[in-house]
Amino acid sequence: MTPELKIGVAGLGTVGAGVVQLLQENQQLITDRCGKHLRVTAVSARSKVKDRGFSMEAVRWVDDPILLAVMDDVDIVVELIGGSEGVARLLVENALAAERPVVTANKALLAHHGRKLAELAENHGVPLAYEAAVAGGIPVIKVLREGLAANHINRVTGILNGTCNYILTTMEKSGRDFADVLQEAQEKGYAEADPSFDIDGLDAAHKLSILAGLAFGFSPDLTTLHVEGITAITAHDIQYARELGHAIKLLGVTAVRDGKIEQRVHPCMIPHDAPLATVDGVYNAIQVEGDRVGRLFLEGRGAGAGPTASSVVADLIDIARGTYIPPLNMTMQRIREPQFSAIEDVESCYYLRLTVYDRPGVLADVANVFRDAGISVRSLIQHESKPEAPVHIVITTHETRESNMQSALEKLATLQSVIETPQRIRMENL
Amino acid sequence: MTPELKIGVAGLGTVGAGVVQLLQENQQLITDRCGKHLRVTAVSARSKVKDRGFSMEAVRWVDDPILLAVMDDVDIVVELIGGSEGVARLLVENALAAERPVVTANKALLAHHGRKLAELAENHGVPLAYEAAVAGGIPVIKVLREGLAANHINRVTGILNGTCNYILTTMEKSGRDFADVLQEAQEKGYAEADPSFDIDGLDAAHKLSILAGLAFGFSPDLTTLHVEGITAITAHDIQYARELGHAIKLLGVTAVRDGKIEQRVHPCMIPHDAPLATVDGVYNAIQVEGDRVGRLFLEGRGAGAGPTASSVVADLIDIARGTYIPPLNMTMQRIREPQFSAIEDVESCYYLRLTVYDRPGVLADVANVFRDAGISVRSLIQHESKPEAPVHIVITTHETRESNMQSALEKLATLQSVIETPQRIRMENL
Repeated sequence: MTPELKIGVAGLGTVGAGVVQLLQENQQLITDRCGKHLRVTAVSARSKVKDRGFSMEAVRWVDDPILLAVMDDVDIVVELIGGSEGVARLLVENALAAERPVVTANKALLAHHGRKLAELAENHGVPLAYEAAVAGGIPVIKVLREGLAANHINRVTGILNGTCNYILTTMEKSGRDFADVLQEAQEKGYAEADPSFDIDGLDAAHKLSILAGLAFGFSPDLTTLHVEGITAITAHDIQYARELGHAIKLLGVTAVRDGKIEQRVHPCMIPHDAPLATVDGVYNAIQVEGDRVGRLFLEGRGAGAGPTASSVVADLIDIARGTYIPPLNMTMQRIREPQFSAIEDVESCYYLRLTVYDRPGVLADVANVFRDAGISVRSLIQHESKPEAPVHIVITTHETRESNMQSALEKLATLQSVIETPQRIRMENL
Repeated sequence: MTPELKIGVAGLGTVGAGVVQLLQENQQLITDRCGKHLRVTAVSARSKVKDRGFSMEAVRWVDDPILLAVMDDVDIVVELIGGSEGVARLLVENALAAERPVVTANKALLAHHGRKLAELAENHGVPLAYEAAVAGGIPVIKVLREGLAANHINRVTGILNGTCNYILTTMEKSGRDFADVLQEAQEKGYAEADPSFDIDGLDAAHKLSILAGLAFGFSPDLTTLHVEGITAITAHDIQYARELGHAIKLLGVTAVRDGKIEQRVHPCMIPHDAPLATVDGVYNAIQVEGDRVGRLFLEGRGAGAGPTASSVVADLIDIARGTYIPPLNMTMQRIREPQFSAIEDVESCYYLRLTVYDRPGVLADVANVFRDAGISVRSLIQHESKPEAPVHIVITTHETRESNMQSALEKLATLQSVIETPQRIRMENL
């Protein structure tokens, strides 16, 4: 007789329904692989009557999801409600306190309360698994916590938000502007009606904070993470990026430099031949650099019922197989409080686009600003235009500190010939 | 006091030395992550006196590696000797029989004796781990056995041999011919003095057989695996591939179609925009397609001391953490004997390059052969040449059975105008 594990699922949106469906449809395969029958015994969601495409026979309906934490016929709690507070948080806390393993796809919860929840899980000796919280179907949590566990990680760079990547990819392919492409993405269901969580970089920030903690041995810390979204990127910038042999992507970057940790999410120009530059549409991708493994690159679907359910059920199979990895990759006593770099101290190369009146002396004024800020110019593009008409000057720089760039930007803004606020995009050396 | 696990390492070549060095240099990190101190207590290799760049203090030297299987001060045996028979096999068998977990990078051993060794490991209740046996630093075994465990796998496609990929990439970039580039690869140390094991596809075949078994739930079976190497690829083919928007790679492909398993290693034309087409030089890459996750792509270093040691020590950390996954992804009673497709029944698109005399009627003769074999032509290239001079006709076909293509090739060989044996390269739809 195959032993059984009873699964309680809270939240039956796209992902929750996908998880129940996957457990039902691939049941024999899953049992073959983990030696146990993973059976959904209880579910909780907002609407009981909605048809979700799977059988509710032999599944108990629970009105209050928090009950799943303590019910007799639940061995493992799957939290797919979402949100860093409220019901989701209460359910996870209660389940861990009741010594029930928890599987969640909730990045906001982990990013905000990772430390507390990991402590709770450790104190009660149960797994807290969250593969689906970052990059959908890509098993990047497993790769970081297990596959690369022997490596000192130097840098993790990721395309972590499919909505932003779809918008930027479509802008690049079509030459259209941001607002236009955003609207299309909303119509196609690739962007929410209120898209700010995605396009302002917050979703990517939650995910990056989880990866950063795992890579460098601390608990997720959003307060030290610098975030910029993609709303200011124009078709001009994408065009100039191409001219420079680059693509523009919203990247999450975490790295250690001089013993300090950088955590930042912002649009980035990356060379066309870097693997991350080839990641199109709604795909996610992560590049990890380790001291032994060198560069490892992972690409896959970052969202959707199938890929996310694939990761949720992989976590369930791990638990069924008896695998136990400390939630934050090491026990809490070994977790450190690292030093973080302020964004002002981060060094990068920059792309700058100035809109100026094409008058004598403009270039000298601009060049003087860079000289005074101690910034070395790498390349400059100015295409021919009519005298006195607005024209773009595009400058790329050698590596310089963000604070130098900020003072240069302040001075540029005071120049009479400079018409608009200069556009500044960081360039990541991949 | 941190508990200790005593490691015995057999084989101190590039990889073995890399493993010992990694365990020494990243010792604190590894202990942080697995909560145990992984200490190399005993080693065995051919030469005792060679300087390998690490300290031999407190490490016992053993002349007969098979002793490592039973020594008191060895908890885990790491087999890095290589070869499917002899000492390596004896050591692994003895260690498992003595209930010692085994970590190995030995693809030949797994490909030839995977079933027996998995049985032995299961019967004695100990892990048999072999992440480093396939694709060096890429944790593809972990991804297949764990990360994607909830998926029915449809296809696995991989660039599994860095030597072949280096040669093909260099041929593409330089326009040079195979023999010339092989010689350079040998001088640079990217190819062995006797390169046949790599360039004939056997190394990739060993690796693919392991991936195929894990993906589809059977034990590695080399007898049903079709292998072709890269020695017949010419600069002409690479040039025509580019004209067709394709790259030529040595691929390992395993897929399930109509309930039958295909396992094949051969040169392949793949579209330039497929992720696998962008994998350059000594990198390896694997694309996995699952019913839930969709397409997952992994790229990283496939060989070398650092990447391979990264995977060996990841296995040790798994064992230290108490992780136990059945070696072949499910217990032996659940392993099935699948039906395999004969290569004659495999369907693909084809590239064909004929060298013919440019005479009236040649094209009609060729076209008739394709019509008679029931093969539908997709595209045809013939560049202008002098009358009566040899000229290439390049044909790509729609999907057809290998047996149809073979009968077409036989008939083409009988045509008087066809000068050389036609070149045939499969095209994989990625």
